[in-house]
Amino acid sequence: MPKLIDRYIKETLEKIEQKLQTFIPEMESSQAILYQAARYSLLGAGKRIRPLFLLATSETLGGSEEKALVPACALEMIHTYSLIHDDLPCMDNDDFRRGKPSLHKQYTEGIATLAGDYLLTFAFELIAKAEELTDKQKVQLIKILASRSGGEGMIGGQILDLQADSAISLESLKEIHAKKTADMIIAALEMGAVCAESSYSHRQLLTDFGSAIGIAFQIIDDVLDIAPSDVTQGSFISSDQFNGKTTYATLLGTDQSIQTAEKLLTEALELLQKLPFDTELLAELAKMVIHRTK
Amino acid sequence: MPKLIDRYIKETLEKIEQKLQTFIPEMESSQAILYQAARYSLLGAGKRIRPLFLLATSETLGGSEEKALVPACALEMIHTYSLIHDDLPCMDNDDFRRGKPSLHKQYTEGIATLAGDYLLTFAFELIAKAEELTDKQKVQLIKILASRSGGEGMIGGQILDLQADSAISLESLKEIHAKKTADMIIAALEMGAVCAESSYSHRQLLTDFGSAIGIAFQIIDDVLDIAPSDVTQGSFISSDQFNGKTTYATLLGTDQSIQTAEKLLTEALELLQKLPFDTELLAELAKMVIHRTK
Repeated sequence: MPKLIDRYIKETLEKIEQKLQTFIPEMESSQAILYQAARYSLLGAGKRIRPLFLLATSETLGGSEEKALVPACALEMIHTYSLIHDDLPCMDNDDFRRGKPSLHKQYTEGIATLAGDYLLTFAFELIAKAEELTDKQKVQLIKILASRSGGEGMIGGQILDLQADSAISLESLKEIHAKKTADMIIAALEMGAVCAESSYSHRQLLTDFGSAIGIAFQIIDDVLDIAPSDVTQGSFISSDQFNGKTTYATLLGTDQSIQTAEKLLTEALELLQKLPFDTELLAELAKMVIHRTK
Repeated sequence: MPKLIDRYIKETLEKIEQKLQTFIPEMESSQAILYQAARYSLLGAGKRIRPLFLLATSETLGGSEEKALVPACALEMIHTYSLIHDDLPCMDNDDFRRGKPSLHKQYTEGIATLAGDYLLTFAFELIAKAEELTDKQKVQLIKILASRSGGEGMIGGQILDLQADSAISLESLKEIHAKKTADMIIAALEMGAVCAESSYSHRQLLTDFGSAIGIAFQIIDDVLDIAPSDVTQGSFISSDQFNGKTTYATLLGTDQSIQTAEKLLTEALELLQKLPFDTELLAELAKMVIHRTK
């Protein structure tokens, strides 16, 4: 019998996938290529870590899945746009993403730039138009999503990453990880809390939980990048390796990196204990993310 | 004595400029270059047509300037990001913008891509955090801004423009203009109406007014692009000319283009008459925009 968490993830991924499918028009409009390009990057691939955390948080705090699905999809759109722009030649210059040509290779750089802009813009439109949410919730969700993915969050991390050289310190690497990756995991937790109308103090705990899990998640990503167990996940040589970029794994070595991630996971699980809810779902999801092998 | 509309514009431009100055941090943070790049493109230049229309609409309908200033700045940020991305080599490949090097020439393509993403994201954050507006207003403003600048609006127009060849029909050109330019002028009108809490029927009239003025504005832009009266406005040869792009001016000739713009202006001014407000300000602004010589 599969573990309960595996069953939960499988079912929830199907719901996310189905919902994402409904959003981007497949019609024969004159700008159809924009939507085709967006669908190419958004659908049918991706681990959906961020929407999974958002939905699990909302469920943990007693929120309805129906209310949380649109914000979960919006968050995934922001993540997807960031990958599209990050793959461009002027950024990481990655020819492959999730085992297939990256968007600008499949289409053109111009279309990839615009498809990224479209998904970014559409994420905010989706939340603003969500029928299930109150105006107060929408405004809170947009505040979180914009600030965590903005200049002090994900985009800030991207600019640091873009300018980082190979002699980067552990301190600087931590800042990049915190902004580029952890902030979007934190966004998932905080947005889930807003969907469930949770109290401010609970939200604070979830922010700290998300911060620890987000950094551990990126460390494991770096480790798997050095020793990919499944080449279908991407190109054989990652762009970080090719570009000679410093990562946790190159700076601390694989063993110490994994130890650091495990320590963060333990801290995160301890934080969960302080919440007056059954937090099994979030705990299992966190363990799955940190213990994954691809 | 200068005309009253000139005085209004001068004073209002100063307020817009001052407000824009306050938003983007000048601090010494590790991602300072992101904010420097954003300031380079956002501040001290630009005709500010869209925020002017937003503020004038709000004032015409009895709204307070204080409430409308943040949405006006957010709209200008969306416009600015679109210019930054549009100038990139993979799009229009423009080396100059407003008489100085375009952002990717002054910095790098990577920084320009991220600075555009930042301004786009920050526009929504600003509205969501505006203290003067109700949650209902914020949600309405974000809906308008996202949809008018999104796949069915500005970005849709950009993708059509990107794929247009030199044998483009007048019909296709109209669609590009309507989406790429008029939708953002319409956004200014509709957002101004939301700031002033106007009725739905008044908003509909303003949408039609914005549509006519927006297309006329783009036609005049095309005409001035062929016969620039002031070379400091940009490079001597525009990218449209260099790229051999078809515009209203190349398709219809200068005289007929100007006639078309004048006809649209007349229609727009007639629409204004139907509003039960003193619409002198909007009318003068529209005339100024269509009769400008640079």
